[in-house]
Amino acid sequence: MSIRIGIFGYGNLGRGVEAAIAQNPDMELVTVFTRRDPAALTLRTPGVTATAADKAAEMADQIDVMIICGGSATDLPVQTPALAKYFNVVDSFDNHAHIPEHFDNVDAAARAAGKIAMISVGWDPGMFSLNRLLGEAILPDSKAYTFWGKGVSQGHSDAIRRVEGVADGKQYTIPVESALEAVRSGADPELTTRQKHIRECFVVAKEGADKARIEKEIKEMPNYFADYDTTVHFITAEEMKRDHSRIPHGGFVIRSGKTGFNGENKHIIEYSLKLDSNPEFTSSVLVAYARAAYRMSKEGMSGCKTVFDVAPAYLSPKSGAALRKELL
Amino acid sequence: MSIRIGIFGYGNLGRGVEAAIAQNPDMELVTVFTRRDPAALTLRTPGVTATAADKAAEMADQIDVMIICGGSATDLPVQTPALAKYFNVVDSFDNHAHIPEHFDNVDAAARAAGKIAMISVGWDPGMFSLNRLLGEAILPDSKAYTFWGKGVSQGHSDAIRRVEGVADGKQYTIPVESALEAVRSGADPELTTRQKHIRECFVVAKEGADKARIEKEIKEMPNYFADYDTTVHFITAEEMKRDHSRIPHGGFVIRSGKTGFNGENKHIIEYSLKLDSNPEFTSSVLVAYARAAYRMSKEGMSGCKTVFDVAPAYLSPKSGAALRKELL
Repeated sequence: MSIRIGIFGYGNLGRGVEAAIAQNPDMELVTVFTRRDPAALTLRTPGVTATAADKAAEMADQIDVMIICGGSATDLPVQTPALAKYFNVVDSFDNHAHIPEHFDNVDAAARAAGKIAMISVGWDPGMFSLNRLLGEAILPDSKAYTFWGKGVSQGHSDAIRRVEGVADGKQYTIPVESALEAVRSGADPELTTRQKHIRECFVVAKEGADKARIEKEIKEMPNYFADYDTTVHFITAEEMKRDHSRIPHGGFVIRSGKTGFNGENKHIIEYSLKLDSNPEFTSSVLVAYARAAYRMSKEGMSGCKTVFDVAPAYLSPKSGAALRKELL
Repeated sequence: MSIRIGIFGYGNLGRGVEAAIAQNPDMELVTVFTRRDPAALTLRTPGVTATAADKAAEMADQIDVMIICGGSATDLPVQTPALAKYFNVVDSFDNHAHIPEHFDNVDAAARAAGKIAMISVGWDPGMFSLNRLLGEAILPDSKAYTFWGKGVSQGHSDAIRRVEGVADGKQYTIPVESALEAVRSGADPELTTRQKHIRECFVVAKEGADKARIEKEIKEMPNYFADYDTTVHFITAEEMKRDHSRIPHGGFVIRSGKTGFNGENKHIIEYSLKLDSNPEFTSSVLVAYARAAYRMSKEGMSGCKTVFDVAPAYLSPKSGAALRKELL
């Protein structure tokens, strides 16, 4: 019997989850819940239609795991605890500073309902977190570095678009190659914000706008750009559409550590991602953890979980024996 | 209270475990069990002495986890099931083809005794296996490549030393750079054995030995070298000692996959290790999994486990709340 999945929210992430379900033969999509008019939403999965978000609770017995695809700022803090009363859930809450609070809220709801709620699933938080933990546990005398990019930062792109005179904008976060090399060499450098990443902006200016002022405003924007070496390129709307419509991302978690009674041996562990589509990769991680949520729930577990709490075997549709034979 | 560790066997791996325990404040070394004369063994941990291997069972209540540091060919198939009758155990059994059989033997012993037995812990099998599983679970439409090196292969070095006229030999396995690049590009190449790795040998010939014959015998040796591009360098015993006395290793697990309804987006996941000391890194992994074995046993679990069965949080001495705050 397939694992019956519901998707809550149908933006980039929800559409990515739909595509990922189609790649996993042990899963089926039951419906997509939307706050818009469900009749106006055409899904890509044959035979599946959308449902109004406020009807979700009524479908509690038809869905094994709900994958919540809202935003971390305002959607997930409300949706995840609310839906965990009825469903095993998975979300991609990525506001690192507020994870402990989100965990506590979701844990209370999930425990009371006897459901599994996986939060902060994706690649950062998610796969990167897992690699930060594994590296620290294996090499206690070590230092970890996380680099992001090359990839599109949605938040920084939004910030550019708020500057007066900007019609459209896209920002790429790019790790500084020499910093990556220094870390890989085992030199354990102390790196400032500016030394780790550069920010490259592509801007379509409105007609007659003062480009020099726009560039200055972007480069001096506190928090977003002021602490970085930032470059600004003005391009046409056609160039923006042609060259910058994808949502690539990626990054690196590099750990440099020492072993031996005198720390005489160095070790470098590197995990990296190069993703054509940030939302589709995140969605693929969500779907694998939905499988884990389903199986852990079947075994009687409940409460809030993160990637740290999931034994990897739960993520795979294969049996333990098959995993040991084929992948160990 | 510390986790009380016993080490069974005191070769490169056992000494590495001793060094790793010294890096983990929540652990203490109780003793090292040896089949040699314990009085002749001087440990590096102050105040700790060796014990005769046949006295192990008598110390069952003084040791929380036994880390078994024997070889996979003949030691571990006997030692791990035998010791799992008395202790939670961890081993680094790395004979991939025989893992299912080893698992079954160890599982029966550990279940009967109510102990946890972690097998095949290290980096391959171990961290590499974990990355093979994670990648496959996240990207079902994908292909994985494992490369080893640059590093010393003990088995191939031994094979060289068995050639007539060879006084000493060391073999490095080296991934072919162009193959790595092809995989990273997402081209999903089909690679032959010869296209993935080259083998570089350093040989000290005995006085008067026929070097041309030695080189030919090495290069044509079936299974070990015949399927590879192999280079043989003759060096002096002094050069061997000066330049080749370390035991570095490492490698790469690279997964290349596609997402989207039409497979339109590509993703590359890469995990790599660059290790100055293969046994010390393996030892560090063993010690982290010893912590997990201890905690899982405390929670009432038993039976044989692999890296696939261990929720990552068990590996860290930190609390769940601290992990979520600091590493998620």
